[in-house]
Amino acid sequence: MCRWQAYSGRPIRLEDLLFNAKHSLIDQSMCSRSAETPTNGDGFGLGWYGTRAVPGLFRSIRPAWNDFNLRDLAGQVESPLFLAHVRATSLATVQETNCHPFRYKNWLFVHNGEIFEVEKIRRDLLMQIAPEYFGNILGTTDSEVLFHLALTFGLEKDPLGALQRMAGCVEETAKAAGIAESLWMTLGISDGKTVWAVRYASDRQAPTLYYSKAVEDLVQLGLEPKTRERLGADARAIVSEPVGKLVDAWVAVPESTALRLRDGSIEVVPFEPAVSSAAPVKGRG
Amino acid sequence: MCRWQAYSGRPIRLEDLLFNAKHSLIDQSMCSRSAETPTNGDGFGLGWYGTRAVPGLFRSIRPAWNDFNLRDLAGQVESPLFLAHVRATSLATVQETNCHPFRYKNWLFVHNGEIFEVEKIRRDLLMQIAPEYFGNILGTTDSEVLFHLALTFGLEKDPLGALQRMAGCVEETAKAAGIAESLWMTLGISDGKTVWAVRYASDRQAPTLYYSKAVEDLVQLGLEPKTRERLGADARAIVSEPVGKLVDAWVAVPESTALRLRDGSIEVVPFEPAVSSAAPVKGRG
Amino acid sequence: MCRWQAYSGRPIRLEDLLFNAKHSLIDQSMCSRSAETPTNGDGFGLGWYGTRAVPGLFRSIRPAWNDFNLRDLAGQVESPLFLAHVRATSLATVQETNCHPFRYKNWLFVHNGEIFEVEKIRRDLLMQIAPEYFGNILGTTDSEVLFHLALTFGLEKDPLGALQRMAGCVEETAKAAGIAESLWMTLGISDGKTVWAVRYASDRQAPTLYYSKAVEDLVQLGLEPKTRERLGADARAIVSEPVGKLVDAWVAVPESTALRLRDGSIEVVPFEPAVSSAAPVKGRG
Amino acid sequence: MCRWQAYSGRPIRLEDLLFNAKHSLIDQSMCSRSAETPTNGDGFGLGWYGTRAVPGLFRSIRPAWNDFNLRDLAGQVESPLFLAHVRATSLATVQETNCHPFRYKNWLFVHNGEIFEVEKIRRDLLMQIAPEYFGNILGTTDSEVLFHLALTFGLEKDPLGALQRMAGCVEETAKAAGIAESLWMTLGISDGKTVWAVRYASDRQAPTLYYSKAVEDLVQLGLEPKTRERLGADARAIVSEPVGKLVDAWVAVPESTALRLRDGSIEVVPFEPAVSSAAPVKGRG
Repeated sequence: MCRWQAYSGRPIRLEDLLFNAKHSLIDQSMCSRSAETPTNGDGFGLGWYGTRAVPGLFRSIRPAWNDFNLRDLAGQVESPLFLAHVRATSLATVQETNCHPFRYKNWLFVHNGEIFEVEKIRRDLLMQIAPEYFGNILGTTDSEVLFHLALTFGLEKDPLGALQRMAGCVEETAKAAGIAESLWMTLGISDGKTVWAVRYASDRQAPTLYYSKAVEDLVQLGLEPKTRERLGADARAIVSEPVGKLVDAWVAVPESTALRLRDGSIEVVPFEPAVSSAAPVKGRG
Repeated sequence: MCRWQAYSGRPIRLEDLLFNAKHSLIDQSMCSRSAETPTNGDGFGLGWYGTRAVPGLFRSIRPAWNDFNLRDLAGQVESPLFLAHVRATSLATVQETNCHPFRYKNWLFVHNGEIFEVEKIRRDLLMQIAPEYFGNILGTTDSEVLFHLALTFGLEKDPLGALQRMAGCVEETAKAAGIAESLWMTLGISDGKTVWAVRYASDRQAPTLYYSKAVEDLVQLGLEPKTRERLGADARAIVSEPVGKLVDAWVAVPESTALRLRDGSIEVVPFEPAVSSAAPVKGRG
Repeated sequence: MCRWQAYSGRPIRLEDLLFNAKHSLIDQSMCSRSAETPTNGDGFGLGWYGTRAVPGLFRSIRPAWNDFNLRDLAGQVESPLFLAHVRATSLATVQETNCHPFRYKNWLFVHNGEIFEVEKIRRDLLMQIAPEYFGNILGTTDSEVLFHLALTFGLEKDPLGALQRMAGCVEETAKAAGIAESLWMTLGISDGKTVWAVRYASDRQAPTLYYSKAVEDLVQLGLEPKTRERLGADARAIVSEPVGKLVDAWVAVPESTALRLRDGSIEVVPFEPAVSSAAPVKGRG
Repeated sequence: MCRWQAYSGRPIRLEDLLFNAKHSLIDQSMCSRSAETPTNGDGFGLGWYGTRAVPGLFRSIRPAWNDFNLRDLAGQVESPLFLAHVRATSLATVQETNCHPFRYKNWLFVHNGEIFEVEKIRRDLLMQIAPEYFGNILGTTDSEVLFHLALTFGLEKDPLGALQRMAGCVEETAKAAGIAESLWMTLGISDGKTVWAVRYASDRQAPTLYYSKAVEDLVQLGLEPKTRERLGADARAIVSEPVGKLVDAWVAVPESTALRLRDGSIEVVPFEPAVSSAAPVKGRG
């Protein structure tokens, strides 16, 4: 099981969230509070939006805690929107192209969880990915397949709808292969303006997900004025596990729920897999 | 363009062929005599047969010339049959799973060359790979696709026939996509007993390939008695470019030709792509 | 804190001890039973004696648990004497030259522990290393300094004496810098015939160390006849933490103790730092 | 032999100089026009000044031409002052800590060249490095030794004087060991405001070094107005080999010469090794 974090707000140094906060993502890469896998040492990745539409990507197979390039990068780069991920796997090979985030044009995608018995359906899922996205697949994770299925189902035009159709497609394909409960995930996705997040599992036992309260509310909880000043009013984070000293700063996301974060506002909506009436590939062939 | 070498005969230290010979494979990784790409610095790989049916595999994205683990391994391990490969690419990502040899059970596979405009047909080729081999694909090279197509077409039972059907399949699929001359390759393959090698290109301009004369003939050409003693009577090598001091030791393999090397004997046979009457996947679905 | 293992006996596949045993070294790299540092993910190393005097060395900064080259190597190579090490550090840089074992000619050296406040005395210790060994230092660990100090103090001629003089030198140098209790270690050392091991700490709180009972005794404890047959009568292991299913197979090494293992026999002797009457460098200057 | 580049001026994307220019540094890493070593594939490094006094550092042992993290970083980060380096070595180990630039607080240092027969005097040179700088040495290159000797000789207060004393110290130490002509170098150094560069060799056969003419002069030579606009009036570069399309844009630096670049102005001064009357370490002991 992996861990991830997303930030949106006034530009901050990446290290503020990744390294300096109490129980930061890098701490979590060595030792997690609530997870089944104690160590996330199978690589990490960072995607950040700067002055270009296409985000920067830094991925490495080293454990995040001992990578000096990551520390330097996080100490220099400021960004108003970034996603970071630390990985633990016993399945797909440890290589950079299997590290999250995955990128397509201006889109970033991170995943925590897995497709159950994916080896039985990976080929079937791959074949449902549209040709125009197929060449963007560089690794061998189930996570990257989920991303490109979502693209195939219209992620660029209707993000949450596409994610629901992607989830439906995976569950249908798995059922056809005799896998009753196949999908187990939290997702973090961005186009550079908005962050979408999803918590969903076929068996309603998805990995945890949290979002931070509004900065004004954090002030009531004890946020230091200096930090409030630096973050501005719109700063929000979405995380696998709570970060920082303010224990009440975080709201747990329920099962089968999606978030839409933009300009400091978080919209919470239900998330249910959608069965597509027509197979997506047929319409393209 | 890449370089590779295969050895079969009495067990020798890997370094004898890879490091110590004049113009060895490691030399070639820095600077090649005849190739268009001057540097093969995008990783390397080594597959060797020991006391188990499954061969050992050592692959790294470091340039072969500066990898200390490779030097130590090659200085310790002795093997009667091994394949080694140094890589140059401007296409697929540099990662270990894209380094040759590729392995399936007791089989090893190396490739020098490319599929022309592979990005147009990679998905179509992948879909013709049988499900039972699909899960063994870990990287994103056209070379690995060739290997798994050959497996799909019966490599384990009829090696040269399967390779000819694989070549036919690639050329057909490419033609359907408007690519007139698609395949450009030398191949090296082994099951641990026999080595097969192929030189073929759709445009009859394949990369070079050579095999060494029999040891008894090399003695006539000046092979030192000590080396003759060490190698035994059955030692043979197949290489992208000649190695060592004896310039007349090597026989150039003609276009559209396959080799079968076993117990010191090399059989030279024509190689032509075969059109399969029935699509291979249908028969399996 | 790190973990290590040494084996001496009839040649076995490296994986038998490193991967296949219950609570093997690779398991320990992810999760240790008794140690303060839960994860040993900062690289690993393996030194094995084969048919040459100089042992092979394979070191990598990847976590041992996800390195495929290590798994293949350990599955192919058989050796009658090898040392393996997994590393956890918050001090020296994670790079291959900081991974154990360290090697000098036919000698291998692994260390678990540290020199307390080494940054205060590292330069002073380095300057006491004799010029003929200085060029063999490739990394920046305190462990490598201990090895080269031991070489300077005569490791090649009088191993245990040299190790005692090395320990005395470190404690003296540290005391001069105001560090009362400086040395904390278990050591594993071999010349290819004999294995020496040491458990010592200035404060008598050294990391744990164990050696396996004689194979004949293990038979009494339940060792399977097949395993007994494979190992022969002389197999012995020395480990940071017990390995395998036979809980009574291991003897804890007391504080301030050295072991000498050869041909299946283990000699247990006291270990005390020795104060050298003359500084070693002076005699060489 | 290595290659390096320094830029100072209005902030530009790193990729503009490193990737996009004709015959850029990354091109040079695969194939150099004038150098003896055809390939600089033994790692690279990048140091850039951002909004902090301490510069960012990104160093990798991968060949620069195939590192995706470098490409992304260079495509996102803008900087008014940076140094980049590609490495070729047959001497010191290929590891990140041996990649340039080296850093101390706000200082960066790159080197092309070598100390002749450094293995004979490395220990003697190390012992002349002051204790307060010694702990900053992380690798094993002669280049890093030159940097820390320069720091010992006062780089932070009198850069060119310290570099001349460093050069004198190396030549003296080498002569005492019987090495007549020891030093062969170009250097690039910065504190974040000024760039110093040196071309010097004991035998007056130093590697090449060039600096770019003033932007106004480049306009006369054909610099496009758009590029002139983007660079501003103060942009200057110092390089091992000329870059870009304007062949007359570059001025060759003579032997035994130093440059001081600040705010777009380049001062050219003679450089001669200085013999220090007192050994630097004594004054600190």
